Amino acid sequence: MANEASESFAGGISTPQKKKSPANEDGDDALVPPLNFATVDGGIFRSGFPDSANFGFLKSLRLRSIICLCPDKYPEANVQFLKANGIMLYQFGIDGSKMHLFVKNTLCSPIDDKYYEQESSTNIPQETIREALKVVLDVRNHPLLIHCKRGKHRTGCLVGCLRRLQQWCLPSILDEYQSLAAGKARESDQRFIELFDISSLKHRPLSFSCSPKNHIGVVQKAVSYPPLEYYHEESL
Amino acid sequence: MANEASESFAGGISTPQKKKSPANEDGDDALVPPLNFATVDGGIFRSGFPDSANFGFLKSLRLRSIICLCPDKYPEANVQFLKANGIMLYQFGIDGSKMHLFVKNTLCSPIDDKYYEQESSTNIPQETIREALKVVLDVRNHPLLIHCKRGKHRTGCLVGCLRRLQQWCLPSILDEYQSLAAGKARESDQRFIELFDISSLKHRPLSFSCSPKNHIGVVQKAVSYPPLEYYHEESL
Repeated sequence: MANEASESFAGGISTPQKKKSPANEDGDDALVPPLNFATVDGGIFRSGFPDSANFGFLKSLRLRSIICLCPDKYPEANVQFLKANGIMLYQFGIDGSKMHLFVKNTLCSPIDDKYYEQESSTNIPQETIREALKVVLDVRNHPLLIHCKRGKHRTGCLVGCLRRLQQWCLPSILDEYQSLAAGKARESDQRFIELFDISSLKHRPLSFSCSPKNHIGVVQKAVSYPPLEYYHEESL
Repeated sequence: MANEASESFAGGISTPQKKKSPANEDGDDALVPPLNFATVDGGIFRSGFPDSANFGFLKSLRLRSIICLCPDKYPEANVQFLKANGIMLYQFGIDGSKMHLFVKNTLCSPIDDKYYEQESSTNIPQETIREALKVVLDVRNHPLLIHCKRGKHRTGCLVGCLRRLQQWCLPSILDEYQSLAAGKARESDQRFIELFDISSLKHRPLSFSCSPKNHIGVVQKAVSYPPLEYYHEESL
């Protein structure tokens, strides 16, 4: 116990600070986490889309990988940041907009034969989330950041499915989803999390990197997902 | 990298499940996190007051320590759980109720010489939070759970001060506080976090256990806080 080493965190990374307050009067080295940033587990983080103001903070996390759940081309500034820091990008493009089905309300009278709009979860493909989960579960990708645009829906679905694998009870999974959706929780996402089929994943070893004394010596097999855009030898 | 070990997580701990859904149809081994549970950082967790329904989940975290910020005697069932699992308790009793000051509103006319109720932060003592932070910063206490009653205000203040030490910018610190206060954010807590004096702590090494490749070999000095109620040799 006495030999345990402490680890350096976030030393001397400069990010611009506009407001001078007691919270940052020690200099201009305050770190700016991305929108809706949170720690999911040891070595796994989540957030909204990071921009250049967040690069100092991301650097302090010493990321090895980023999972982006947006389908658009990754911004050039972010690409350069990843290249400079040897961070691998896994992009699983999922459309973030709500999918609306027009459902006939059978309670209406035949005269009011209207179709009503209803949210659908068909825009979150199970298979894409399953592939992303395999990346999350591989400790060789940690520390890892999961993000979409606002870090609420697509990210919330992926983390919710991870919690299923971690055997959290459903009410707690949905509490966490709702808490980070910050008033924008979607019924369809919550249904997706509840119904997601974990059977093909549940025999994979799960990592929990805050328990360094509990290594059980299981080495995960190599991941077969090349980064979609580029790969750099790890410099960390 | 090839030798990196995966760690076992949460195997076979039984907790009662009332509702049978696809999320727990794999058996009755679903884990129930305490109210408002969240990961603060690798090896640091936060929540509301855990009860016996949460013991299976807490066991899966393989905690070494708990910081309780409530002043009341720790419940006997929780004491027994800590004893059985070799978890050390650090209790820093802080009154959780809002302290109200009656402040004269100087904008009133002399005829309406009324006193107005205003929240005060005097019920969160800086020195107590500072002592609790020293326990949080000592990696020998990790994995560690910080809790109060609902995991919102006292816990939010302590985590907010930790974020100050981690050099997060103030708006992000307050976003996190508000997110986990779930609509019950207190102005007084946010002022406390902003004004908290970190000068005596900022030269301590900070830990970030998700970055195992960045050990710098700094060993923290022994913690001088005996547990308030009992101590067990660590069995982990």
